[in-house]
Amino acid sequence: MFEEIEAARERLRSIVNRTPVMTSRTLDALTGGLIFLKCENFQRVGAFKFRGAYNSINQLTPEEKRRGVIAHSSGNHAQAIALAAKLLGVKAIIVMPKNTPPVKKTATRGYGAEIVLSGNKPTDREEKAERLSNEYGYTLIHPSDDLNVIYGAGTAAYELIEDVGSLDLVLAPVGGGGLLSGTSISVKGLCPEAKVIGVEPKNADDAFRSFKAGKIIPSINPQTIADGLRTSLGNNTLKIILENVDDIITVTEKQIIEAMKFLWERMKLVVEPSGAVSLAGLLYGDLEIKKRKVGIIISGGNIDLTSFFKLLEQRIKS
Amino acid sequence: MFEEIEAARERLRSIVNRTPVMTSRTLDALTGGLIFLKCENFQRVGAFKFRGAYNSINQLTPEEKRRGVIAHSSGNHAQAIALAAKLLGVKAIIVMPKNTPPVKKTATRGYGAEIVLSGNKPTDREEKAERLSNEYGYTLIHPSDDLNVIYGAGTAAYELIEDVGSLDLVLAPVGGGGLLSGTSISVKGLCPEAKVIGVEPKNADDAFRSFKAGKIIPSINPQTIADGLRTSLGNNTLKIILENVDDIITVTEKQIIEAMKFLWERMKLVVEPSGAVSLAGLLYGDLEIKKRKVGIIISGGNIDLTSFFKLLEQRIKS
Repeated sequence: MFEEIEAARERLRSIVNRTPVMTSRTLDALTGGLIFLKCENFQRVGAFKFRGAYNSINQLTPEEKRRGVIAHSSGNHAQAIALAAKLLGVKAIIVMPKNTPPVKKTATRGYGAEIVLSGNKPTDREEKAERLSNEYGYTLIHPSDDLNVIYGAGTAAYELIEDVGSLDLVLAPVGGGGLLSGTSISVKGLCPEAKVIGVEPKNADDAFRSFKAGKIIPSINPQTIADGLRTSLGNNTLKIILENVDDIITVTEKQIIEAMKFLWERMKLVVEPSGAVSLAGLLYGDLEIKKRKVGIIISGGNIDLTSFFKLLEQRIKS
Repeated sequence: MFEEIEAARERLRSIVNRTPVMTSRTLDALTGGLIFLKCENFQRVGAFKFRGAYNSINQLTPEEKRRGVIAHSSGNHAQAIALAAKLLGVKAIIVMPKNTPPVKKTATRGYGAEIVLSGNKPTDREEKAERLSNEYGYTLIHPSDDLNVIYGAGTAAYELIEDVGSLDLVLAPVGGGGLLSGTSISVKGLCPEAKVIGVEPKNADDAFRSFKAGKIIPSINPQTIADGLRTSLGNNTLKIILENVDDIITVTEKQIIEAMKFLWERMKLVVEPSGAVSLAGLLYGDLEIKKRKVGIIISGGNIDLTSFFKLLEQRIKS
């Protein structure tokens, strides 16, 4: 599978942003390690999801491309598929729950995708996407369990190691597991001695439980501020994670917010809750960090800032 | 004066963060130019001010260093002097108005500086700092009109041009004028054909008026959200600006907030209002940008996020 990631990396080279690796003297001093943040909040559409979406659509046959793609998502995968499809001249349909915030619908439409609304339960949009896929021949691109999505996601860790050299430990957030499994393939391929640890919100700990049990134990309607990590592992991601990942740890909601505070206040990075989960694992996960070289995947930066800017605007009116 | 900037650059090389230059496909498409943001929000203490503070204290005689330094500031200059003094083993006194937010006092104290409170008028802290300077022999480091502060500030634009090559136009915010004058010396020294334009809040437009009049016309108690730009030009900065700067333009409070929104939402950068003023000039300043290579100095990222994180914390409690 490592070869697949190398191929994806070549394919994506001129398409994705080669996102910067950021460091912090304070973070190094706090942890005693050398910490490198791979900042996928600076990726196109604001999240690593663009890597997998492009890699997946790019691999379709000409006939599949002609028919178009479909995805279900209320989050970053929707925008990633919309932009990747546009760049590749492929029609994209996105199934979104009715209660999706208007700002997300507008962003997705802005990339030229067609939006179809579904009921608000996760199963509603999955069923609708499958039905439309069967009816019209659209290829369904799963947000995390699609192998080409996994390989694309793994290119972020690949770039990180290219930029900073071998690492001792890499932390990645885990929701559906696409990023973590892709990361694990890259890391074990480039520096096999390195440990890979997934970090998951305690309030949506299906991957933690599935990893311990060796089989999928899905989360039922999990409540976490890290809205990108509410999904559960799939067959492909579970298999890769069981093979490659050394451990999965969990963090609390409060720890996620503390990690965000560090990223925003000290490092001046806009990172969404899901994107800060791996740093929360570093700060609160009781891991052996001293003198270690640690990579942290910061997965995205899409967060609604409407209320923040409303407060600012009030200040200039008074 | 260009030689002084080159010397400062050597002096600061291993001390300052070589801050990244960020670009945005959207920004290039919006303006028709090639736009390069020099992101001094990623500088130590979160603002370009550290460059000048370190350069200035570093140049003191051993006797002056022994006696210590004093500065008056409620903002980034305070923290910059505090950290630079600590790194150089020099005692630092910061005079701050009584109404300075506790968070800023804590940050400044955190770097080991001693804080002395003054009345809330700008003249109160200036007088107090001068009095203590005379009484105890502390060297007063002016936040913008000190020549070594100006040379230090100019190293940001120097690095930018080293990284991206010659530019056609460079925009920098102007408050006291230290950053703009330092920037202008670097730019005219490295690519003399380039234009340098200062951008100022319309609500604190003393530099705009002084530039047109050819003499200092200070702002009286200006009200702008760009709190780092409320100060007025000094003798040194006015002289350098009249010599080197091609124009000064102004932007409204609303335009400053729109520029911030672009930086936060689209570019995922935490930038304070003062730091977004130069981008506001690019977006709304009616300048000739098409096909031009433009450098934008993003000066800092220190903004109080307490209310934003309070809202987030409420979400995890419910």
